[in-house]
Amino acid sequence: MTNPTAAMLVIGDEILSGRTRDANMYYLAGALTKIGIDLKEVRVVSDDKAAIIAAVTALSAAHDTVITSGGIGPTHDDITADCIAAAFDRPIDIRSDARALLAAYYDRQGIELNAARLRMARIPDGATLIDNPVSVAPGFTLENVHVMAGVPAVFQAMVASVLPGLTGGAPLLSQTLRIDRGEGDIAGPLAALAEEYSDLSIGSYPFQKDGLYGANIVVRGTNEAHVSAALARLRGVFSQ
Amino acid sequence: MTNPTAAMLVIGDEILSGRTRDANMYYLAGALTKIGIDLKEVRVVSDDKAAIIAAVTALSAAHDTVITSGGIGPTHDDITADCIAAAFDRPIDIRSDARALLAAYYDRQGIELNAARLRMARIPDGATLIDNPVSVAPGFTLENVHVMAGVPAVFQAMVASVLPGLTGGAPLLSQTLRIDRGEGDIAGPLAALAEEYSDLSIGSYPFQKDGLYGANIVVRGTNEAHVSAALARLRGVFSQ
Repeated sequence: MTNPTAAMLVIGDEILSGRTRDANMYYLAGALTKIGIDLKEVRVVSDDKAAIIAAVTALSAAHDTVITSGGIGPTHDDITADCIAAAFDRPIDIRSDARALLAAYYDRQGIELNAARLRMARIPDGATLIDNPVSVAPGFTLENVHVMAGVPAVFQAMVASVLPGLTGGAPLLSQTLRIDRGEGDIAGPLAALAEEYSDLSIGSYPFQKDGLYGANIVVRGTNEAHVSAALARLRGVFSQ
Repeated sequence: MTNPTAAMLVIGDEILSGRTRDANMYYLAGALTKIGIDLKEVRVVSDDKAAIIAAVTALSAAHDTVITSGGIGPTHDDITADCIAAAFDRPIDIRSDARALLAAYYDRQGIELNAARLRMARIPDGATLIDNPVSVAPGFTLENVHVMAGVPAVFQAMVASVLPGLTGGAPLLSQTLRIDRGEGDIAGPLAALAEEYSDLSIGSYPFQKDGLYGANIVVRGTNEAHVSAALARLRGVFSQ
């Protein structure tokens, strides 16, 4: 009984140039873990058609769900929708349902629905729209790929629209034990415990603080009793 | 005249589970941009042998330089060195130069160089060591892949050891103009400018603040005069 898997594709030169620190990967990772979907891979690519198409094609074939972030606004560097259409060999044009959403929104504000804004109504044939309660311009779902905006507030709203519709597995639970000894001291007994509790993932995350070495040992699994038992054993082994 | 390209591979369940927010990608992106190496792709994979080998093989073939982060400590979940050896079909064992570094370091502190710590001296045949002034255990370079620690302080020290030896290109310069109008208003003229200055990358990064919409227009390129000229034209177009 394994959990469904997911991959994320972050699209944007601003991440790869170091201008912007990504926030969406961290947010999505936490949200998927809570509902029992295993995020297995993230890729970050630039605003480049061939790179986007290759990445989405590979990730869509390898995982149950793919979530993309970025590149669906009205400017010339927003090319995600066209790339997704190309990846799945679907026609793409301004769609009436998306146009109606934008028209109503801009009409209320007395803003012109010009050619640039209409680009945000370009939706591949056969896709379903993803609700955007923040700024209306929709994302969309095509096959197993959910296409979302890069602006964190909008991304998070779209994640909230999509996640309840996904089939999750057993939520991944984790418990952490901080050990104030160097990893080299604890690695031997830790490896033995990891082998004993092979249904759990036991990770060691070293830190240095005020010149002292330590590690946070994180026990992850879907069975709460097992996770707690492993943590109790860890405490026993390392309290000596 | 294009710049050399780089890819990054982040290895670690702690990123994909949402426990830890990655810091190394943001740091490396900025450091590479400064020396004129274009970071083209980042992948994040879990502590899984097949996933690490597949990713490093693909990235090494596609880019001039690959930098990995994570998985080179002494615990059972540190499998990066063995995966890199497997990816390049090289033998791997405890190497005397790496062992000598560790032995001297632990000896000074009166700490035992036990089997777990010796794992950090496992280096593939033919690799050169990367200096670690923070905690001694070395990274290594094999072919075009530089294998570094995940702990940010150590990662940054290793980046500082390696980057001066890489052949950079023309550093990417960027200038930013903030425009307090919605992207939909500026997208048309912006696309025309992007076409006119086709040697530059012109990106639009929307924001919302206090209910107002705006965008930061970032002009990137290696020719400072062109970047400045494009920014001046942008100012002219959008000050009307």
